[in-house]
Order: sequence, then C-alpha cells, then structure tokens
Amino acid sequence: MSERDPSAIYIGRKPVMNYVLAVVTQLNQGYDSCTLKARGRSISTAVDVAEIVRRRFMKDIVDVEKIEIGTEELAEEGNRTRSVSTMEITLIKKK
Amino acid sequence: MSERDPSAIYIGRKPVMNYVLAVVTQLNQGYDSCTLKARGRSISTAVDVAEIVRRRFMKDIVDVEKIEIGTEELAEEGNRTRSVSTMEITLIKKK
Repeated sequence: MSERDPSAIYIGRKPVMNYVLAVVTQLNQGYDSCTLKARGRSISTAVDVAEIVRRRFMKDIVDVEKIEIGTEELAEEGNRTRSVSTMEITLIKKK
Repeated sequence: MSERDPSAIYIGRKPVMNYVLAVVTQLNQGYDSCTLKARGRSISTAVDVAEIVRRRFMKDIVDVEKIEIGTEELAEEGNRTRSVSTMEITLIKKK
C-alpha cells in the first residue's frame, strides 16, 4: 500500500456508505473491477463495504475475486517502526 | 458460523497474543490447518493473528490457504435482525 493506486479505494474512518457509493460509482463508470484497501481497524469496514455492495447494491453483478492480507511497517517517532495489518479485497463484475 | 466448529478458533475481544498462542498450539499438536473465525470489529484482530503467526512464530511453516467473507443475520429484540460481516481465514502447514 506504499504507492497509491489511482483505481483503488482506500478505506478509512468515513461512514461505510461513502465507500459503498464510491465502489458502485466506479463499477458503473466502466471499470471491470475495484480494489478496496484498508489497514488496521479499517479492515472490518472494508469487509462491510464489500458485503453491502455485493449483497445489496450490485447483487448478481459482482463477485469477490481475491482477498489478500499483509503487514506494513509504519515509521514512528525516532527510528522505531510499528507493524500494521493490511487487507485488499478485489471486487469484479461477473461476465 | 452458526454451528460451532470444534477445530476452529473464534476470535473475540481477548488480547491478540491469546489467539496467536491457540493457533500455534493447534498446529503443533498435529493439525494440518487452523481456521480463524471472526465477525464485526473482531475481523481486524483475526488478520493480526494470522499475520503474526505466519510472519513471526511459524515463518516458512504456514501459508494462508483461503480467506472468505460473508454476512450473518443476528436476531435482535423483537423480530428485527441485524447484519454483521464475517471472515474466515484458513492457515495451512506447508508440505
């Protein structure tokens, strides 16, 4: 997640529906897929977004293609680093 | 997640290291795999547990085999239900 991916949607602390709207908009604008990226406590929000999109707003249209988890080192004060978990969920339009 | 799976580890609100220890113990006792199950806010803890096990305690021994997300309906007061996101992460010993 170090380099920002322009086609990805970064999940943070906004209300879940903001991200749902962003995903639905992206998939309706001709993109075939959409990757949700989250770290730390926002990971559970990313799962909420994916589930709401595929079960409520784009039912029968969207599948979960891939889910990946990882760890990222964040620089802290001094020379210390802190590990934070990351997740990427890729949603794809069904053919 | 409605039926309890005896070989699964259910992630809740205990400290992360409690669950890490449970996973490492299970995999060292002859089990070839271990499934972490979580819902709601505990989902991000489940990712932390998986990442700590595979990067720190069982490095080069364990892989993530499968990650699944879903939605569960929880009964609330009256006849209402509430949707909650779920996640299952299966860790498997490398051959």
